[in-house]
Amino acid sequence: MTLKKLVENKAKAVKAASWEMYNLSTEKKNALISRIAYKLLAHTKDIVKANALDMENGRKIGLSSALLDRLLINEKRIYGMVTGIKDVVALPDPVGMIHDRTYRPNGLKVEKMRVPLGAIGIIYEARPNVTIDAAVLCLKSGNTVLLRGGSEAINSNRALVKVLKEAIKEEGLPVSCVEFIDTTDRSAVRVMIKQDKYLDVIIPRGSQPLIKYIIGESSVPVIAHGEGNCHIYVGKAADLNAAEEIVFNAKTQRPSVCNAAEKLLVHKDIARKFLPAILKRLADAGVEIRADKSVRVIYKKAKLATEADWYKEYHDLIIGVKLVGSIEEAIKHINIFGSHHSDAIVSRDRTACDKFLREVDSSAVFANASTRFNDGFELGLGAEIGISTQKLHARGPMGLTELTSSKFVVRGNGQIRK
Amino acid sequence: MTLKKLVENKAKAVKAASWEMYNLSTEKKNALISRIAYKLLAHTKDIVKANALDMENGRKIGLSSALLDRLLINEKRIYGMVTGIKDVVALPDPVGMIHDRTYRPNGLKVEKMRVPLGAIGIIYEARPNVTIDAAVLCLKSGNTVLLRGGSEAINSNRALVKVLKEAIKEEGLPVSCVEFIDTTDRSAVRVMIKQDKYLDVIIPRGSQPLIKYIIGESSVPVIAHGEGNCHIYVGKAADLNAAEEIVFNAKTQRPSVCNAAEKLLVHKDIARKFLPAILKRLADAGVEIRADKSVRVIYKKAKLATEADWYKEYHDLIIGVKLVGSIEEAIKHINIFGSHHSDAIVSRDRTACDKFLREVDSSAVFANASTRFNDGFELGLGAEIGISTQKLHARGPMGLTELTSSKFVVRGNGQIRK
Repeated sequence: MTLKKLVENKAKAVKAASWEMYNLSTEKKNALISRIAYKLLAHTKDIVKANALDMENGRKIGLSSALLDRLLINEKRIYGMVTGIKDVVALPDPVGMIHDRTYRPNGLKVEKMRVPLGAIGIIYEARPNVTIDAAVLCLKSGNTVLLRGGSEAINSNRALVKVLKEAIKEEGLPVSCVEFIDTTDRSAVRVMIKQDKYLDVIIPRGSQPLIKYIIGESSVPVIAHGEGNCHIYVGKAADLNAAEEIVFNAKTQRPSVCNAAEKLLVHKDIARKFLPAILKRLADAGVEIRADKSVRVIYKKAKLATEADWYKEYHDLIIGVKLVGSIEEAIKHINIFGSHHSDAIVSRDRTACDKFLREVDSSAVFANASTRFNDGFELGLGAEIGISTQKLHARGPMGLTELTSSKFVVRGNGQIRK
Repeated sequence: MTLKKLVENKAKAVKAASWEMYNLSTEKKNALISRIAYKLLAHTKDIVKANALDMENGRKIGLSSALLDRLLINEKRIYGMVTGIKDVVALPDPVGMIHDRTYRPNGLKVEKMRVPLGAIGIIYEARPNVTIDAAVLCLKSGNTVLLRGGSEAINSNRALVKVLKEAIKEEGLPVSCVEFIDTTDRSAVRVMIKQDKYLDVIIPRGSQPLIKYIIGESSVPVIAHGEGNCHIYVGKAADLNAAEEIVFNAKTQRPSVCNAAEKLLVHKDIARKFLPAILKRLADAGVEIRADKSVRVIYKKAKLATEADWYKEYHDLIIGVKLVGSIEEAIKHINIFGSHHSDAIVSRDRTACDKFLREVDSSAVFANASTRFNDGFELGLGAEIGISTQKLHARGPMGLTELTSSKFVVRGNGQIRK
């Protein structure tokens, strides 16, 4: 069978199975994902053994230690997956929920009902935990899922998909509720993103070049996660202690993630008071400071930032620092140079905070809190399949509700259109 | 200037203008669109004159009478546009609305706020009323808009865009709140759908081949309107008089539109009682009946339907008729052969209605009402920029709310992530 045919058949099977999932009761969906947790524990040894093959290959081909860490599955991580599944079991099922009820003058009762999206394609890199996390969230929200994971995790994914399939079979559900594209051939992605006949949405998780390629070429609608060039603006009415803690946390607590702060904008009136201490503390923690000229007058050890710096997501212990003359200038800078991911103001001035929160156009905006809170668990969604930085459908962390669509449900007693 | 550069510049200008619209007060937005209405009345003669050129060219190139009717602008239609604008002025502004407020254990207050989508591209055929309708809805919801209308309406659109620009200037807003791609060169569409750097969404309105082309090639997210292969299922507990009225209305009231019924599924137990009268009435109204074998036993004059018929949107006085043995068979048929647009059940059995409404996966599902009600005005949205048949972002009629996105708004008092 050609690769094209293989991917097409899997997409078709996943779509066909979606009709049975569409109306599955919450009880049965919970039974299914609980059984997945049970099976993960029962097959821990097989999974760890399969993962060891991937780890060995990964070391051979020279994967970085960060990538090897993402690839690793051990007993503790399997317990982590199981705990995650238990949390998802406890979450409310959005499917069937009614919202926006109205009555029309002609007597029609109009409601909207949450329904599954249908068949979801997930394209991700060599992080085998996504295989379980994504499958469980898709199934709980009544969707079926076609998985395409990074080739470096192929053995781990095979073992995990075996677990998923066993649980599905034992619950008497169509085996194609979950399908996995079992090939390391990268062109499978190219075929998968053209399956608009069968797939309702594709969620890519991975590097920006991969995501951009998928957005540009996919005929299936995409929900995508863009860059995180996140800002903290310290206003002239800021509590400077709080500002220092928030900036230090947002930059250094986990610098490789998308909601870490990359830029610090400071109102010029408080710059001399605020900057020396925080910049020294950041530098002592190994953070490279790239600043504009006026900051360098205050903190001479800073490197000079280039224009490119203001657009950049460093993903690293680097921070760009800039003075601004007003909150308006800060907002404009963030909207033009930022990536509309997570941006924060630190200020005790309520009006300034309101203005910032209203006018900065990002997936999450914060007043007096770290940008690191832009996360499904931290914002109370209970679980997260990713963070969307696009404007359609879902923006910010995506939980179970964001894995559903809706339909108009209209009840009448014989109404016809005049 | 090359066409590519021209389109790119307009997209860039529309995006730049979107930052001013993003936070414009409801009052100012209403003042703007009210002024558009005023200007339409003041320039009625110029608009009708420009339209006469398009009508003349249209007749020369042999446009059908249906297309000429869509192209026509007269005084009465301008009054219609003005009335429509007044209705939009009266609608609530979704921008800034807060929903889904929660408090986190660490004291963070988490809310979602509705915000404009940003810069919207509208691609449409030779229906110049869309120029005004779409611009007004986009502006009211805080968006800017790049218009690309059908070449047969170029003179009408130029006159209408002049009106829009005048109103924008007089209100002191950036002129590029509305831009128009003033060329009849069809390749402008190809350039426009690649402007993901500037456009936040594209809404195509037009023929299915055009929409499919845009979905396949656009790197900008698309909200699209698919086919309407709509069904009415008459269950065994149906009020047969109501069923007859609903079927007759949904098929014949306006057969060329997307929410007209194309298929009639009838439970076999009531077929002999129900079918003869309704099929005769439809035939007398000029409707061609294409039926399966079992229907032809009851109503001999029907043509035999082919498998292709079950997939087809006729847009015409034709109906496909089929017997089913159960509600399950009806639901399965609709989900597999239908286009997920508008589907109805007629039944006095509440359980059957609930089952149908829950299990049929369409943008709008109806119990005991005509499919013709799948419309923004009829369902209470107050206005409509189109009907979405896709599952992401908006499904069913799209009003002002569907022209917005949301962002997480988080307020704290110094929280950092541990």
